Amino acid sequence: MENFTFQNTTKIIFGKDTEKEVGEHTAKYGYKVLLHYGGGSIKKYGTYDKVVKSLEKAGVDYVELGGVEPNPKLSLVKEGIELAREEKVDFILAVGGGSVIDSAKAISVGYFYDGDVWDFFTGKAEINEALPIGVVLTIPAAGSESSGAAVVTKMDGMYKRDIASDLIRPQFAIMNPEITFTLPDYQTACGAADIMAHIMERYFTNTENVELTDRLSESALKTIIKNVPEVLENNEDYAARAEIMWTGTIAHNNLLGTGREEDWSSHGIEHELSGIYDVAHGAGLAVVFPAWMNYVYQHDLERFAQFAVRVWDVDPDFKDLEWTARQGIKRTKEFFSSVGLPVTLEGLEIPDERLEEMAEKATENGPIGNFVKLDKEDVLNIYQSALK
Amino acid sequence: MENFTFQNTTKIIFGKDTEKEVGEHTAKYGYKVLLHYGGGSIKKYGTYDKVVKSLEKAGVDYVELGGVEPNPKLSLVKEGIELAREEKVDFILAVGGGSVIDSAKAISVGYFYDGDVWDFFTGKAEINEALPIGVVLTIPAAGSESSGAAVVTKMDGMYKRDIASDLIRPQFAIMNPEITFTLPDYQTACGAADIMAHIMERYFTNTENVELTDRLSESALKTIIKNVPEVLENNEDYAARAEIMWTGTIAHNNLLGTGREEDWSSHGIEHELSGIYDVAHGAGLAVVFPAWMNYVYQHDLERFAQFAVRVWDVDPDFKDLEWTARQGIKRTKEFFSSVGLPVTLEGLEIPDERLEEMAEKATENGPIGNFVKLDKEDVLNIYQSALK
Repeated sequence: MENFTFQNTTKIIFGKDTEKEVGEHTAKYGYKVLLHYGGGSIKKYGTYDKVVKSLEKAGVDYVELGGVEPNPKLSLVKEGIELAREEKVDFILAVGGGSVIDSAKAISVGYFYDGDVWDFFTGKAEINEALPIGVVLTIPAAGSESSGAAVVTKMDGMYKRDIASDLIRPQFAIMNPEITFTLPDYQTACGAADIMAHIMERYFTNTENVELTDRLSESALKTIIKNVPEVLENNEDYAARAEIMWTGTIAHNNLLGTGREEDWSSHGIEHELSGIYDVAHGAGLAVVFPAWMNYVYQHDLERFAQFAVRVWDVDPDFKDLEWTARQGIKRTKEFFSSVGLPVTLEGLEIPDERLEEMAEKATENGPIGNFVKLDKEDVLNIYQSALK
Repeated sequence: MENFTFQNTTKIIFGKDTEKEVGEHTAKYGYKVLLHYGGGSIKKYGTYDKVVKSLEKAGVDYVELGGVEPNPKLSLVKEGIELAREEKVDFILAVGGGSVIDSAKAISVGYFYDGDVWDFFTGKAEINEALPIGVVLTIPAAGSESSGAAVVTKMDGMYKRDIASDLIRPQFAIMNPEITFTLPDYQTACGAADIMAHIMERYFTNTENVELTDRLSESALKTIIKNVPEVLENNEDYAARAEIMWTGTIAHNNLLGTGREEDWSSHGIEHELSGIYDVAHGAGLAVVFPAWMNYVYQHDLERFAQFAVRVWDVDPDFKDLEWTARQGIKRTKEFFSSVGLPVTLEGLEIPDERLEEMAEKATENGPIGNFVKLDKEDVLNIYQSALK
């Protein structure tokens, strides 16, 4: 186990009807709120009304900015910064999934910065101040509700880049699994792939002696694997929705990475896909992760065999760890496929035309990943292996 | 799953040599520190010197109060409150295990209170203010390093009672597994029983649909079960010491209790033992918990069967869940015994003379526990079943 520090201060308020408490939680931090959200779903299904009513009841004034798209765009972030300044807001309330939360985080750091907010994403500027943020989560997936990270896309050049700081960790996250009843199956499945990817990016490590976090990670993966099919059969299965939602937070609140070197190459490889082709991040991960696994598994057969046995209940062949390891990868891919996700670039309707450009961009700052360091050639090989 | 809120703000600083950073962490909170510790072990093994050096280097002034005993006493708490007031300290640094930390927590709330600090333990007073606390952990057991609870013993009447408030949750906890190399085997084993008990008090619940936290709890238990024997064979096994230490925190930072009704009757039953006979809390739990399990397991055979299969790798007999359930209890008791713990009151050298008095005191505020409500008669039965 490596030395580590761990602190996650976000207050989780979890369960039925909790969105009705958002006003009182918000009132602890702000008097004038930027209410940030995405498309029409929160209005269609009543969440918007409940949130607004609760804010009003708590005497919190608000100004709205909707329209956040999946893979949130820098242009809207800039609009949000201007609006927040004009209206002198002192708190941002993100009602949505990871895209809305990440857009809010970008606004929160841009608010105090005179230059271009993109500077934070390129490393030109350092985060020293941010508006406090609260979340009403509507999609279990990104884990952004208690993370100190955000990902935003700049359309000019199609760059999808991230920022990280404890200052952008939300103050609170309100999580009512009932709000997720209306998620389309494809979005539920994409969320599951994202959650599993967050766990697996930490699981595949070269750090020795990380038994507790290995086991906790396996527990989280098994919970997703069991509950996602339940939810696809019955969209209003509260128990299963709750398991997925809470696992989505645990997957990415840093607990599972404590004391371990993490990988994150699959996320880097996927970001180029969703940056250029605007596919759902989770769907991209369902394609990239198994391809990555097939490319690297021989680096540590024991770890991949453990993954196969403990996560997928594969009966191990101790004389043939390679076979055992491959079964785990096969089951991962089959699982993604079984919940309706594409597992090839073809399935994502991504042609082979820009693979080289993407591999180039994914590695523009040098090799990516830690489990196995991947250069441009490696990334290109992974894209190519994922074509069909 | 029940509705819940979860927030744990303690910053964990984990790993080799981390105690040398205590000065810089402390300096963020206080200029004048009450350095609180137990017997001589921190001086004997060099931890004291490292802490003092680090405080001095960071320019932090300190005043000392050592002498905390296992099952920390109210009398020393009162002494600490007086000293802290005289010296106008603004922070308490607890260097030790749960007893030292809990003593520090009691001082931190008594500092601001004009009445008798015991009022907080009897419910006569409410915690509204507390000095901030930091921890250098030397014994993985109580989980007090990131909990918002403390247990103190009042010798007059032999009462062992607790307080709970987010205000007494430590600001930081420094955890270097190397410091635990010198723990005597018995203390290591007692710590393991305490950690396992914290998990099991949450595990045995009537709440349905708590799959994630069930699995996380099983992971934590398996980690202890695997690593404690390793440490007893080789006291300086860093990897195994680290697993135990980090699991000890996770066992009691409330994550594993999210969305579940918890039990806590075994702790209540044990508190009377260690309150009156001053036995080690972990040793008392090793006696009480299996006795409690045997008394209540028929209340939920499926849960006890799951515990047997997932935690102890019992091969289930689906036609005889009772047998399956009993195997798990048997293995639990055998495990405690195998690591050198007593599993009967006789082993603790506790006679049968005061069982009725203890049962009376344990239930003086009404039935205890939630998995099964236990009245005085039940508690007495459990004590009696644990005699030999």
